[in-house]
Amino acid sequence: MIKVGIAGATGYAGIELIRILLDHSEVKITKLSAKMDGKPQKISDIFPSLKGRIDLICTDLDISDMAKESDLILLALPHKVSLRFVPQFIKLGKKVIDLSADFRFDDLKVYEEWYAPHTGESRKLNSQAVYGLPELYKEEIKKANLIANPGCYPTSVILGVAPLLKDKLVKTDNIIADSLSGASGAGRVPSMVAHYPECNENVKAYSIATHRHTPEMEQELSKLAKKEIKISFTPHLLPMNRGILSTIYLNLVKKLKEEEIIKLYQNFYKNEPFIRVLEKGTFPETRNVRNSNYCDIGVKVDERTNRVIIISAIDNLVKGASGQAVQNMNITYGFKETLGLESSGITP
Amino acid sequence: MIKVGIAGATGYAGIELIRILLDHSEVKITKLSAKMDGKPQKISDIFPSLKGRIDLICTDLDISDMAKESDLILLALPHKVSLRFVPQFIKLGKKVIDLSADFRFDDLKVYEEWYAPHTGESRKLNSQAVYGLPELYKEEIKKANLIANPGCYPTSVILGVAPLLKDKLVKTDNIIADSLSGASGAGRVPSMVAHYPECNENVKAYSIATHRHTPEMEQELSKLAKKEIKISFTPHLLPMNRGILSTIYLNLVKKLKEEEIIKLYQNFYKNEPFIRVLEKGTFPETRNVRNSNYCDIGVKVDERTNRVIIISAIDNLVKGASGQAVQNMNITYGFKETLGLESSGITP
Amino acid sequence: MIKVGIAGATGYAGIELIRILLDHSEVKITKLSAKMDGKPQKISDIFPSLKGRIDLICTDLDISDMAKESDLILLALPHKVSLRFVPQFIKLGKKVIDLSADFRFDDLKVYEEWYAPHTGESRKLNSQAVYGLPELYKEEIKKANLIANPGCYPTSVILGVAPLLKDKLVKTDNIIADSLSGASGAGRVPSMVAHYPECNENVKAYSIATHRHTPEMEQELSKLAKKEIKISFTPHLLPMNRGILSTIYLNLVKKLKEEEIIKLYQNFYKNEPFIRVLEKGTFPETRNVRNSNYCDIGVKVDERTNRVIIISAIDNLVKGASGQAVQNMNITYGFKETLGLESSGITP
Amino acid sequence: MIKVGIAGATGYAGIELIRILLDHSEVKITKLSAKMDGKPQKISDIFPSLKGRIDLICTDLDISDMAKESDLILLALPHKVSLRFVPQFIKLGKKVIDLSADFRFDDLKVYEEWYAPHTGESRKLNSQAVYGLPELYKEEIKKANLIANPGCYPTSVILGVAPLLKDKLVKTDNIIADSLSGASGAGRVPSMVAHYPECNENVKAYSIATHRHTPEMEQELSKLAKKEIKISFTPHLLPMNRGILSTIYLNLVKKLKEEEIIKLYQNFYKNEPFIRVLEKGTFPETRNVRNSNYCDIGVKVDERTNRVIIISAIDNLVKGASGQAVQNMNITYGFKETLGLESSGITP
Repeated sequence: MIKVGIAGATGYAGIELIRILLDHSEVKITKLSAKMDGKPQKISDIFPSLKGRIDLICTDLDISDMAKESDLILLALPHKVSLRFVPQFIKLGKKVIDLSADFRFDDLKVYEEWYAPHTGESRKLNSQAVYGLPELYKEEIKKANLIANPGCYPTSVILGVAPLLKDKLVKTDNIIADSLSGASGAGRVPSMVAHYPECNENVKAYSIATHRHTPEMEQELSKLAKKEIKISFTPHLLPMNRGILSTIYLNLVKKLKEEEIIKLYQNFYKNEPFIRVLEKGTFPETRNVRNSNYCDIGVKVDERTNRVIIISAIDNLVKGASGQAVQNMNITYGFKETLGLESSGITP
Repeated sequence: MIKVGIAGATGYAGIELIRILLDHSEVKITKLSAKMDGKPQKISDIFPSLKGRIDLICTDLDISDMAKESDLILLALPHKVSLRFVPQFIKLGKKVIDLSADFRFDDLKVYEEWYAPHTGESRKLNSQAVYGLPELYKEEIKKANLIANPGCYPTSVILGVAPLLKDKLVKTDNIIADSLSGASGAGRVPSMVAHYPECNENVKAYSIATHRHTPEMEQELSKLAKKEIKISFTPHLLPMNRGILSTIYLNLVKKLKEEEIIKLYQNFYKNEPFIRVLEKGTFPETRNVRNSNYCDIGVKVDERTNRVIIISAIDNLVKGASGQAVQNMNITYGFKETLGLESSGITP
Repeated sequence: MIKVGIAGATGYAGIELIRILLDHSEVKITKLSAKMDGKPQKISDIFPSLKGRIDLICTDLDISDMAKESDLILLALPHKVSLRFVPQFIKLGKKVIDLSADFRFDDLKVYEEWYAPHTGESRKLNSQAVYGLPELYKEEIKKANLIANPGCYPTSVILGVAPLLKDKLVKTDNIIADSLSGASGAGRVPSMVAHYPECNENVKAYSIATHRHTPEMEQELSKLAKKEIKISFTPHLLPMNRGILSTIYLNLVKKLKEEEIIKLYQNFYKNEPFIRVLEKGTFPETRNVRNSNYCDIGVKVDERTNRVIIISAIDNLVKGASGQAVQNMNITYGFKETLGLESSGITP
Repeated sequence: MIKVGIAGATGYAGIELIRILLDHSEVKITKLSAKMDGKPQKISDIFPSLKGRIDLICTDLDISDMAKESDLILLALPHKVSLRFVPQFIKLGKKVIDLSADFRFDDLKVYEEWYAPHTGESRKLNSQAVYGLPELYKEEIKKANLIANPGCYPTSVILGVAPLLKDKLVKTDNIIADSLSGASGAGRVPSMVAHYPECNENVKAYSIATHRHTPEMEQELSKLAKKEIKISFTPHLLPMNRGILSTIYLNLVKKLKEEEIIKLYQNFYKNEPFIRVLEKGTFPETRNVRNSNYCDIGVKVDERTNRVIIISAIDNLVKGASGQAVQNMNITYGFKETLGLESSGITP
């Protein structure tokens, strides 16, 4: 039984962490914090779905107080905020899983170009951070003190193409990732873009070729392919709450049958409990992974163009954020990897 | 051809006025204003749906400027704001159709209790205002200089029960109006309540027994029945953009057949181009009036309880706001009542 | 550990039973049946969300086969179908929880008037059936062999008004229940009414004053009040997947404060783990109970009309169907009442 | 004033034709047909949104009867049905605009490979048919008797890339079109795929690399580029009623600035009233074209990969079907091209 503190508890990743951990047999949530402006509030008043399940008060973050009561800190804070707090928790001997982008980049220059400069302390810590994609870095995660939980889009894209890149079966200069996301990805702060009458009955592309998840994908795809890769990535905002579907186009370096690629994927992910490689002719839909930690992957070979099209689906708040954080927690604490994450998706 | 200025052009009632009037053969939109904080903007940059159809710049409201260029002023401003501006436009000899609640109440005390006190000038004007529900006040609207456009919920409820109250066929102490509205009724300013992930896949009642449209309904129902009426009114927020469906429960004072009541309604509304009394056994759905100025009404007699249940449906932004304002404009200027409003609803 | 067979596994109540029971520590699902027309299929091919979690094949119903492999039979079949099968399972010594309406009525005449005649065998069984609303009939459920799981709308309405009727605090001739339901209530067979472009961006009332859940509510309300009650009930179809919100209007027999009524409710339900009586001024929303077995209840007194307005919210597929069936199973087998049902709702 | 008969009036393209033509000053709808199985019905009973606007009865198709009463026949029938009827109408001297795919292909072999074989008579007619994309074939449409109205996806993709291909600015072996469509594209016949609880809160790709609109796009892109082009095309089904957004990826043959490409597009479409080329940095959203005949196009150059990404948006039922048919009608009859189609989109 470990004690867990959650910072950023009032956002969607925060409530999802709480929801999952309340049903986790090895965890006790001990502290919740968020930007409360000096007005602490019961978390079940903020999220009435939690009424009767948890009595904790959500307060402004007090680092030493949270550290005292927690073994593990889960940070669900905005980018550029975590880098101020993580070093302090690490210094106090705590394990940290950070859901922001702040420690995801090997190359600090890339982070600085797309986000902001690291400060002295977080700079030093950066090299200790492990990129928390368990299907690629399970051994490193086991030993990590600081886990940088991947972004939602990168999770769906990297998992979708890893086997092909690892085996050098696709050209690396023509990868296109086209992703569709539900509106919870825009966060819980009201905005025009996610205002119901503007978002409902509408679809739009945004941050076309400029989204910050692009360099995160490129870092991991480049490592897999062992050469530098640049991709085109276009995210779209859809009128639904949850889910990311990525449609990824890659040019094959030789003729390959669907069956061969599916077998390759099944083999690559054979020990991974949350990856479901779908049978030939069947393809992911976001509702099949809604509220679950699964990543479903489907494969289509377009023989007319010798292209392979990969479809991957995740729940952006589970495998794309909080579920993956719990999976990382399970791994680093030696719990069963699926503990608290067994539930199947919810239909309808 | 009249010249029309619109204040509050950037809200949902504003854009709907523009959309309708652009297709209106007797109107030229001459001025658009809104709270622009000193930064004028092309209206087609604010609402890209208008690109290629209108080139006007939306500016902060300049009363004398707008008055100079317009015959008629349409005010789509928040409650308590109109009462400051209306007297000035009237003084400058302009006709005004005010979409706010500020001049809807015969009894200033009721307005003050539910909204705010009228000031000196608007106080005096109040008695000249005509309640702009054309199906009840067409003659008055013809001669009016100041038309107080009804609220969206009151439009659906008053039209739904007027014939029964007028003929004293129902008990007046047991009227219950239960209304369902799309999220555009919450306006265009982002808020938690209309934040997509909070509003989607959710329904809630709000302002239960305390909504400000209650006294507006009661005023008109009381006048129809010639006795004071208090009702219970509960609005609900639904995950859709447009539409209000009101389900209204009334106790009959004697046994009546559905056919009789339907005939009564058909007769009451026989000259009203926008009221469609549905045949026995068929009932309104909001999609049938979406984007149209129709109010559809269905009648069900519950013989087991001797109650009549009225269902009425409108588009909250058309018959519930901007379409009704244009209907009032047509009437007061002697245009054909349906001009610019003929389109049927949009399916699907 | 009990063995459970599910008939009607391919409908929405069926998949929801499977989803819940897969995470239930005392249950092993042994048999799944549905109308398969002689073509058995893996349940995870029908519902890909189940991939990796269950390998069972769904076949046409073979009563003796299912009985042989199961201790408990959960029937999620259409009305009028269960009454043929239930007697056979009971005869084979099985416990049955029937999610249809077939055994919910004390008075066979009422059932026959609103549904269909019972046959000889099911006629005899009917009197042994217990109405499976645990908050009212827990002791009877403990000893029951045949549990008639309540309808979704009746669950929300009966739980919403039970304390007031029990204490005779409201008039019994003026009860109005206005309910709003997500489209999963229409079942999984494609139909025009639930066709996406017809159902989306639309709300409609249906079966006004004629819905079959009316006599079910009246039976239970009458027993609570110890006098015959007739109500008006109007269901509405909303553009969302899950959830029922009921707004119920009752006339108070004397002046009562909100606080008093809330206290009465808290007391009435003090031992009920799935009823959450909300604090004064806060009201249920369906999203707060989505995917949970909770029923949230809010109380509003309208002093102007001396009416009390009750709002209750459930997930129609959980507390309104499959969750309640599992709750009944827990009670009748002596498991902890909340086992497998602890999860809070899902936000967003 | 021309007389128009509509076959297939009860589908979504049918109702949309009726809705548009009811407001068209040069058209009188004279006949409506659909598969009525011998039970004629008032069209306003099928689509209650039309109540009060049109009284016609929809009957089973009687070719000679419809021909007698109509100058122009609009066929909104399923693929493979039109090819039986079109020759008969042409023989009777009628103009035909066919919304199906049956006469869209220059090469009968392509049609037969993706759809079905043409019969003798329709075979002969095929070469007379004009592909009804007015922005490319206006002169031919003016003189045509048989206009093959384009598919919805092809309209969005062809208009999106025509200027680049015409000017040979992009590589032709690497074009990827990723399209997102609302559920009305699935038609009005209820099906599991468009069943509300299956379609809502879900997104899926379908017909990946095998959709029948692929050869239609390739035919037109090849003609524009004057070389054979094969593309990859992936359609997706989204939880909304209307709209298609296409995101199209093309590799530039040389470095080009966004401004240059935008200028090229503005020039290419300078006489086209329904194409709106958006300013640099702004991109289409389906809501901006909802219910309008506009096609909005946005341009993004990804300098990191030397790729240009085109976003185009249409309403699938208007510019993607019925609006375009009316545009073709206007052109072929010498009416103003925009007649009856002026309305801007509807927000929200």
